Amino acid sequence: MIDAIVGLCRETGHSPPELMVFLNDLPSNDFNTDFKLLPDFYAMLKREKGNDVGPCFIAGMPGSFYGRLFPSKSLDFVHSSYSVHWLSKVPQGINNNKGNIYMGKTSPHNVFEAYLEQFQSDFSLLLRSRADEIKLGGQMILTFIGRSIKDPTSRDCCLVWELLAKCLLDMAAEGLIEEADIDTFNLPQYNPFIEEVKTIVEKEGSFVIDRLETFEVNLDANDNEENKNYVFDKFTCGQNVSRSYRAISESLLADHFGEAIIDDLFERYAERIGEHLSMEKIKNFNILISMERK
Amino acid sequence: MIDAIVGLCRETGHSPPELMVFLNDLPSNDFNTDFKLLPDFYAMLKREKGNDVGPCFIAGMPGSFYGRLFPSKSLDFVHSSYSVHWLSKVPQGINNNKGNIYMGKTSPHNVFEAYLEQFQSDFSLLLRSRADEIKLGGQMILTFIGRSIKDPTSRDCCLVWELLAKCLLDMAAEGLIEEADIDTFNLPQYNPFIEEVKTIVEKEGSFVIDRLETFEVNLDANDNEENKNYVFDKFTCGQNVSRSYRAISESLLADHFGEAIIDDLFERYAERIGEHLSMEKIKNFNILISMERK
Repeated sequence: MIDAIVGLCRETGHSPPELMVFLNDLPSNDFNTDFKLLPDFYAMLKREKGNDVGPCFIAGMPGSFYGRLFPSKSLDFVHSSYSVHWLSKVPQGINNNKGNIYMGKTSPHNVFEAYLEQFQSDFSLLLRSRADEIKLGGQMILTFIGRSIKDPTSRDCCLVWELLAKCLLDMAAEGLIEEADIDTFNLPQYNPFIEEVKTIVEKEGSFVIDRLETFEVNLDANDNEENKNYVFDKFTCGQNVSRSYRAISESLLADHFGEAIIDDLFERYAERIGEHLSMEKIKNFNILISMERK
Repeated sequence: MIDAIVGLCRETGHSPPELMVFLNDLPSNDFNTDFKLLPDFYAMLKREKGNDVGPCFIAGMPGSFYGRLFPSKSLDFVHSSYSVHWLSKVPQGINNNKGNIYMGKTSPHNVFEAYLEQFQSDFSLLLRSRADEIKLGGQMILTFIGRSIKDPTSRDCCLVWELLAKCLLDMAAEGLIEEADIDTFNLPQYNPFIEEVKTIVEKEGSFVIDRLETFEVNLDANDNEENKNYVFDKFTCGQNVSRSYRAISESLLADHFGEAIIDDLFERYAERIGEHLSMEKIKNFNILISMERK
């Protein structure tokens, strides 16, 4: 982002602006670790960019982005990377999502509806909140995980979680956890189809879409690029993917099932994911949307 | 602060403004704990003030206040409570401050000079930094610990640390620490005389002083108010004072002398402080300065 500003200032002959940056996450996030890195970051900025960058001030803003975070018309630019697919809560009325922890092939129809409704409500609230905060003509760029086809019952968005659910079901079969606990656990996230995103932005009405792009990223970002169909090293790839999905889901799973099962669960997951990737690569489908405040 | 805004809005018939508040401390401070309290604070504000308070947004700004923290002309009001007596570093050239950990009765003259010079340089930098950030007509209120008389060699500002130094010297005599380590430890703080503060503000030139007040607070805020000369319960008062001085100095002492001595040191300190308070009360002398950006 800073590189883009430096480039634009050089191109247009403008002197670099003062930058005020807010890092947002939930109040329970570990801000301390980020803050401790700031002195080194400032030093690096000065060393690498010199006078090409003006003063840069970085603050932390704790709070949910599903609601107001900043004063009215105070922001020039909002960026969110890999967060907006997280919902504000688990959708209501999906107690019948048996044997699943997210939308899955075997989920009843109402589950898909409930997930879409929650996303519509959350994403609209995000747009409305940011619309209040962004100055006229200000920009917002969001990158998040979605799905490539309209049909949510397809495995396109759900496979990684279906494989995790299978590991949990195996553990239930072995008596390590209760199957009833799996039925009551559902992930608060949603992989929207691009047209769903577009419709919500147009209906909410505060932003004009400048660009709406999609791109795919291998589930294991480090795997062999030369082979498009399957990975060569199922063990390493399985471990890599398991670790990254553990990072994003451990706290939710540990809250529900207890800390004790986590190591076992993600060892099983590494194996299962590795097996799958050795037969067929999975990719995360990403949506990038750039919008201007009307 | 919020009460003052609510009162003023009621008086003048203005609708409550949107508040953007930054909490500043060094990047190594524990912001996580503060941030976790925010949801309850917002709920309390809503419950107690209702519509008398507009939206309030609280962010964390990690960084030293001896330098720029915010964009130019972006702040309406700055408040600092009990921080400005902390210097940016230990003054240079005070290796001869033998048997002391701060200015003390037995300190050589150059020690007093070095402490004053460091305060002059730090406080000027604070004023200059805030002057850049505060809007024209904006206000700054600082409360910090000072001393009531001009002569810095008097015990007015130094007694609490002289008593702590005595505990360290006792421990050195018992072979628990090295006396040489005491000689190389000096606290990075300064208790300015009110005229010193005034002179620096006037010399720096960015602010007009609206009010300059002083007030005294008992070293143990919980002790018996009815007796002005000494405390009745030297044990409890000693413990209270020892705990609060441990809170503000433990990390510096542990860095220098090691964690292992801390419990012992502050037990000795509680006893010594208690003994002293049972003969004579000590008070912290506070300076409050309210300034307007010219």
